[in-house]
Amino acid sequence: MLTLVSMLQRSELLYGSGIAVRDPGGNLTWRDYVDRSARAAGMLRGLGLRAGDRFAILARNSARYAELLHAAYWSGAVPVPINFRLAPAEISALMEDADCAVLAVEESFAGLLLQPPLDAWRPRAFSLGAASPSGLPCYDSLRDAAARLDPHDSAEEDDAILLYTGGTTGRGKGVRISHRNVMANALQLARTMSVTGGDRYLHVSPMFHSTDLKATAVSMLGGGHVYLPEFTPRAVLAAIQQYGITIGSLVPTMILRILQDASFGQFDLATLRLISYGSSPMPAERIRRTMQAFPGVGMQQVYGLTETSPVLAILDEDDHARALAGREDLLAAGGRTLPGLDVRIVDGGGEDVLPGQSGEIIVRGPQVTRGYHNRPAENAAVFRNGWFHTGDLGRLDDEGYLFVQDRKKDMVITGGENVYTSEVEAAICRHPAVLEAAVVGTPDERFGEALCAVIVPAPGTAPTPEDIIEHCRKHIGGYKIPRRIEFAKALPKSAMGKVLKETLRQRMRESPAVPE
Amino acid sequence: MLTLVSMLQRSELLYGSGIAVRDPGGNLTWRDYVDRSARAAGMLRGLGLRAGDRFAILARNSARYAELLHAAYWSGAVPVPINFRLAPAEISALMEDADCAVLAVEESFAGLLLQPPLDAWRPRAFSLGAASPSGLPCYDSLRDAAARLDPHDSAEEDDAILLYTGGTTGRGKGVRISHRNVMANALQLARTMSVTGGDRYLHVSPMFHSTDLKATAVSMLGGGHVYLPEFTPRAVLAAIQQYGITIGSLVPTMILRILQDASFGQFDLATLRLISYGSSPMPAERIRRTMQAFPGVGMQQVYGLTETSPVLAILDEDDHARALAGREDLLAAGGRTLPGLDVRIVDGGGEDVLPGQSGEIIVRGPQVTRGYHNRPAENAAVFRNGWFHTGDLGRLDDEGYLFVQDRKKDMVITGGENVYTSEVEAAICRHPAVLEAAVVGTPDERFGEALCAVIVPAPGTAPTPEDIIEHCRKHIGGYKIPRRIEFAKALPKSAMGKVLKETLRQRMRESPAVPE
Repeated sequence: MLTLVSMLQRSELLYGSGIAVRDPGGNLTWRDYVDRSARAAGMLRGLGLRAGDRFAILARNSARYAELLHAAYWSGAVPVPINFRLAPAEISALMEDADCAVLAVEESFAGLLLQPPLDAWRPRAFSLGAASPSGLPCYDSLRDAAARLDPHDSAEEDDAILLYTGGTTGRGKGVRISHRNVMANALQLARTMSVTGGDRYLHVSPMFHSTDLKATAVSMLGGGHVYLPEFTPRAVLAAIQQYGITIGSLVPTMILRILQDASFGQFDLATLRLISYGSSPMPAERIRRTMQAFPGVGMQQVYGLTETSPVLAILDEDDHARALAGREDLLAAGGRTLPGLDVRIVDGGGEDVLPGQSGEIIVRGPQVTRGYHNRPAENAAVFRNGWFHTGDLGRLDDEGYLFVQDRKKDMVITGGENVYTSEVEAAICRHPAVLEAAVVGTPDERFGEALCAVIVPAPGTAPTPEDIIEHCRKHIGGYKIPRRIEFAKALPKSAMGKVLKETLRQRMRESPAVPE
Repeated sequence: MLTLVSMLQRSELLYGSGIAVRDPGGNLTWRDYVDRSARAAGMLRGLGLRAGDRFAILARNSARYAELLHAAYWSGAVPVPINFRLAPAEISALMEDADCAVLAVEESFAGLLLQPPLDAWRPRAFSLGAASPSGLPCYDSLRDAAARLDPHDSAEEDDAILLYTGGTTGRGKGVRISHRNVMANALQLARTMSVTGGDRYLHVSPMFHSTDLKATAVSMLGGGHVYLPEFTPRAVLAAIQQYGITIGSLVPTMILRILQDASFGQFDLATLRLISYGSSPMPAERIRRTMQAFPGVGMQQVYGLTETSPVLAILDEDDHARALAGREDLLAAGGRTLPGLDVRIVDGGGEDVLPGQSGEIIVRGPQVTRGYHNRPAENAAVFRNGWFHTGDLGRLDDEGYLFVQDRKKDMVITGGENVYTSEVEAAICRHPAVLEAAVVGTPDERFGEALCAVIVPAPGTAPTPEDIIEHCRKHIGGYKIPRRIEFAKALPKSAMGKVLKETLRQRMRESPAVPE
């Protein structure tokens, strides 16, 4: 069956002597790893968690984190990974929303449980550390004292994991991701990413994010995993060399920092075969530099959402080659849909737009969530006639390339014209003195909304607003040129490197520009 | 969604200019092919077929056959491919059983409609030929006159195709195969067979058999297809060369005949990358010869059933390499299960046997049928607690290799001992003077059942029963040695090359051996 329980049983039997986890603490075979997870499942049962009960994990990436996720799948309990960059009050609200019964916390975050509001969780918490100076019960001892639990006979449609989205701004929503959702995406990705049992996957993006589910395809085929608690260019490069990483999943800013790092040339990266990047497209020039820096390594751009467990579409190696051979426009595409995923582009009334026209991207398929936890109104809004409404604006060309133009809420209407801020950002980023740029709309008496750009200059450059405007004139229509341009040292970003546009909009509203 | 309708729409959009069909009649792009299928769907609707209605196809392999299958999927009608080797009365009974409303018939079989009982079908039949000397309405004209039908919005659980099994002996049963069944297996196989859009699949096993569904993985990724109306070694070799075939799906006897054919060395077979063989295992010596004859070509043995749409397990290239490097016993395995497929081995009471022990193979997974058409008693017998009981006997080793030992009904109990006839056959086949062998049990006063072997000698040899018995003594226990040995020019076989054991048993009963 398409459940993570079946997958673990199969991987234990078929790949038992293969290495599941490579870690400074020692390697674990699939036999050992599943055995540990099954004992950790016994521990969860001992803590009172029944099938369907939810429990929270607040930790950076680690092999223990992975074990605990798999223990949850094995036992039927539903893990709720939490963004550790949230404020304590947000973490508390999220755990209340998910009705968590237990909290697993990394030792270095255990101090949060000493004061309100999280002190209330102390009696229900255990430490994910090997030891717990903070005095919490300790995972390793709890697990080792527990007996192996028989696997829960989960149904394909049962919730496997509850992942919160939108957690850094506004009220987070828990996305219910079923066993079938995860396994369907693993099957789709296994072919697309050409996964084999020889692969070794580097987990460097935070495991509380849906992107981490991509690695299920590797577990399904008996490959191995390496977990990094935090991103530094040197840590990634060293891990590739030390553990023979074959697949790295990175966000574009990570790639940029790796390329710029002084230590870049010092590591042997020969095993790496695939860089999967997502969250935002990369300019052609950076793709070219990345491909030159990693010769022989394939590049895949992923378009996904937490609600799609996570991948909808992929711009694969062939597409990248085609782009660099003259079709640079393709790099702005989210890719082409995975087999089994249906996509349509609709207008505000829910009708299909004409071929090639823009509209809201709606999807259905085996990896699409059945909905948000306890959010009947939101569910009614985003699921209509079996189609999930992504809230992303895009278009589909006549070869099936899906161009994601903007978040619906990020599109700006200025002077009666629709402007996709992502298009303006892409134009600005082509200026050599621009490292990054973000464009938002702010209320404007004359135009309804006015376009504002915040730009991070490239190191050693000092562009002026006039430089940028003159550059934009060459690439985009006049009504798309920002009326206000500011420079900053950095853009506010989420844990996944996504620009927090609401924060920027607020900042712009609070300090209006000098009127023209 | 995991439906063949979604797949066709996606392949039309993403792979529109790629070649879907290579044919002496000319190539068809995916755009043209889906357009034709959608028009043929309009034709089916015009013939009165609504979604869920069934219609029969009686034909040898051809591109038109494939078009018509896809037209059915597109329209929601359910095709019922018929074994053209059946007697007219059997064909008639099968179409009644399936409640078919229309019959598509290859022109060369149209004569069957001139006499009872199939003459009753003449008003409901059309010819699959380009023209119809027999005077039936003709597919090409009907299709070309029809307008493109909007795709039916099939649900994943809807029946996609009804395939009859056991049709050559006893009363055939229609296996209901859903869209999800077919597409799940396509996703599983796409990775296992490393399918890409560059693949070209040779359809030479009859399309009325479930094995043909394997090719769906190729359609899903935009590859091409070549259809051969009948098997001859030369036709296969010529097609590989002419069309650049990359994947050939063959049964072991076909492979044997190809290797023995005088024309073997005359063709350029450089494009071939994978031979997928099934129905029965091959002796190690023949595998070795095949691999030498096709250097660089991977070998995959498939274990499947019509009820599993069709593939359960695969013995892949790595397994073959391992077998030839000293683990020859692996060649007797059906392979290792595909991801998402659960397997258990149970005793007569439905309890799991001890690890490594033999019992009935039971399975569940996304490619497993929901049941037989209009057979409530059979369905109740084979589906218990969500598990499909295959009727095959086997064992699972500690690395997940599934050894299929026998059909449950082919196991012989002699002198109180269980004997797997397949094991005895494998032992006999190791004798150099044996081309093929089949072993059955016949009623016996002293032993309950007695083992009888029918042997086809290798060309130019004349083994005696004593030779065979002496040989067997070296390889199997005394109670497994056949008490009766006969020689024949050929074994009775089904369309798929499976030995018809019931026919042999009957023959043995009708002409008893001289008593000892």
